[in-house]
Amino acid sequence: MSKAAVFGTGSWGTTFAMILCAAGTRTTLWGRRAEIVEAIDREHRNPDYLPGVPLPHELRATTDPAAALDGADFVVLAVPSQSLRANLAEWAPLIPPGAVLVSLMKGIELGTAKRMSEVIREVAGVPQERVAVVSGPNLAMEIARRQPAATVVACTDEAVAQRLQQACHAPPWFRPYTNTDVVGVEVGGAVKNVIALAVGVATGMGMGDNVRAMMMTRGLAEISRLGAALGADQHTFAGLAGMGDLAATCASPLSRNRTFGENLGRGMTLAEVTAATKQTAEGVKSCESVLELARKHDVEMPITEVVVGVVHDGLDPGEAATLLMSRSPKPERYGV
Amino acid sequence: MSKAAVFGTGSWGTTFAMILCAAGTRTTLWGRRAEIVEAIDREHRNPDYLPGVPLPHELRATTDPAAALDGADFVVLAVPSQSLRANLAEWAPLIPPGAVLVSLMKGIELGTAKRMSEVIREVAGVPQERVAVVSGPNLAMEIARRQPAATVVACTDEAVAQRLQQACHAPPWFRPYTNTDVVGVEVGGAVKNVIALAVGVATGMGMGDNVRAMMMTRGLAEISRLGAALGADQHTFAGLAGMGDLAATCASPLSRNRTFGENLGRGMTLAEVTAATKQTAEGVKSCESVLELARKHDVEMPITEVVVGVVHDGLDPGEAATLLMSRSPKPERYGV
Repeated sequence: MSKAAVFGTGSWGTTFAMILCAAGTRTTLWGRRAEIVEAIDREHRNPDYLPGVPLPHELRATTDPAAALDGADFVVLAVPSQSLRANLAEWAPLIPPGAVLVSLMKGIELGTAKRMSEVIREVAGVPQERVAVVSGPNLAMEIARRQPAATVVACTDEAVAQRLQQACHAPPWFRPYTNTDVVGVEVGGAVKNVIALAVGVATGMGMGDNVRAMMMTRGLAEISRLGAALGADQHTFAGLAGMGDLAATCASPLSRNRTFGENLGRGMTLAEVTAATKQTAEGVKSCESVLELARKHDVEMPITEVVVGVVHDGLDPGEAATLLMSRSPKPERYGV
Repeated sequence: MSKAAVFGTGSWGTTFAMILCAAGTRTTLWGRRAEIVEAIDREHRNPDYLPGVPLPHELRATTDPAAALDGADFVVLAVPSQSLRANLAEWAPLIPPGAVLVSLMKGIELGTAKRMSEVIREVAGVPQERVAVVSGPNLAMEIARRQPAATVVACTDEAVAQRLQQACHAPPWFRPYTNTDVVGVEVGGAVKNVIALAVGVATGMGMGDNVRAMMMTRGLAEISRLGAALGADQHTFAGLAGMGDLAATCASPLSRNRTFGENLGRGMTLAEVTAATKQTAEGVKSCESVLELARKHDVEMPITEVVVGVVHDGLDPGEAATLLMSRSPKPERYGV
């Protein structure tokens, strides 16, 4: 029986811990806030992040990283992207030699433009075959309510990906597929928030299913071009961590990025939308770092460009739509 | 200025004729029913298929195939898939030498399991470089109401695809992309109806956005495997005629396939659903011929298989879901 430590008691960290338990993996959740940790460990619930969801009795929780990491085969990281570096630096010395570090995070580090797995390798000083990522159409609340879901577990070492697949395979509830393309899986997860913002703007402007499908597809085309420049495998983008995650995010009324865009598309000013938004929409922050990465690698990302224009430079959404639809005619595939 | 004849006054044929006019192509619609043809030609409207939509004054309509075909550079076919062979046999002798035949149809011929472009080549006796197909996320009513849309125009001869692109490029309204993969574009269009049926069943069972995204993505994976066996280019399936068309069809409440599946998922019996359905859902017919094609080429299509089971053999939808989620763990990519 393998053992896992999950860092982060948010909705996805907690849900993934539930999945690990269901797959027969002995799992301990680490959290910083004692009241959440106690609720999970003693009352088998996490009212702040998964209200109404009963947690497995065998799931342990602790505020002590050393206790969580003791004998762990998998160290699963589910903390906010921008705080990963500082947090992991604190835990790294306690990680058992040989343990696999697993990222559940979707983001690009501000300032360095590094993917989460790159930050992990750098901070923990581990080789790439000891770092895995999990990504897919995985809205946590739906899974926590016992709806079925599938995901991608990626590691450059296929055997490690298979070990992780086994540790979180809980049929018929949760179905992980292996992939060795870590770069593609991470690029898909990080850029989809920018595209979801664009789909939101179009929806707010009253556009229908053709336009949403077109934006998602051409959005995936520019994700694929960026991925190609970074060495990703094109097949990944047609999969669960590419098209799948994009489709779930763009469809879900729970997506903060889509909602932010919808309000802009309805004609609210950027100041009004920002004031009305409680939590930051990830795409608002990351569209600039994605575009920076694209320019560095000389990749055309027209949708990301107009998102940056609309979100940061006061470009009118109607004008943005005309700009996109008036580009010169193209073959469907270029730059990949 | 190029000239086009469009055969079929249904919603997509009429809408595509509007697009051709907007792109500056001189266009004549052919229809069998005199009252529809007259309404289009004299009153610039098609109340049966596009109620409330004003048609361009320069669009002509006729019941005479020879008049429509006179001097045509493009012969656009938008008749029901299963009647293409009989119709085209009648028109073939009148088609100008050198004209390009363009299919707007999405289907597989029953009995022969042939794609529409194969039927066209066979009946009209033309080489593959004179046959093109148009496919993408193109719900006709949304386009007719002047919402923007994009599509794929495919021909094995890139120069012919570019000529067709030019003939139907109407910025900022309608944006065609070229592709040389005719097989992939046609496979995507034909199989998506089967997957939309499955997505409908899941939705009827109360499933959310993760499940819908998972079914679409794994559905696209089996479309890609069938495509690979038939010689298609994998990139096509991540594009507008693959993922794009699938996303629009699975999202649209107007999709007959999705609605048919939803009713099954809610617990109605097959007999009840069939009785409640006025027009046939294409996927109900084609799932069997798709599965036949898959077996002939030894391709795994697990979603298509359970759709056939649910639609034709009384398999319980809940049991179907468990079957799919309990398959042995897999790498994300196989068979392509």
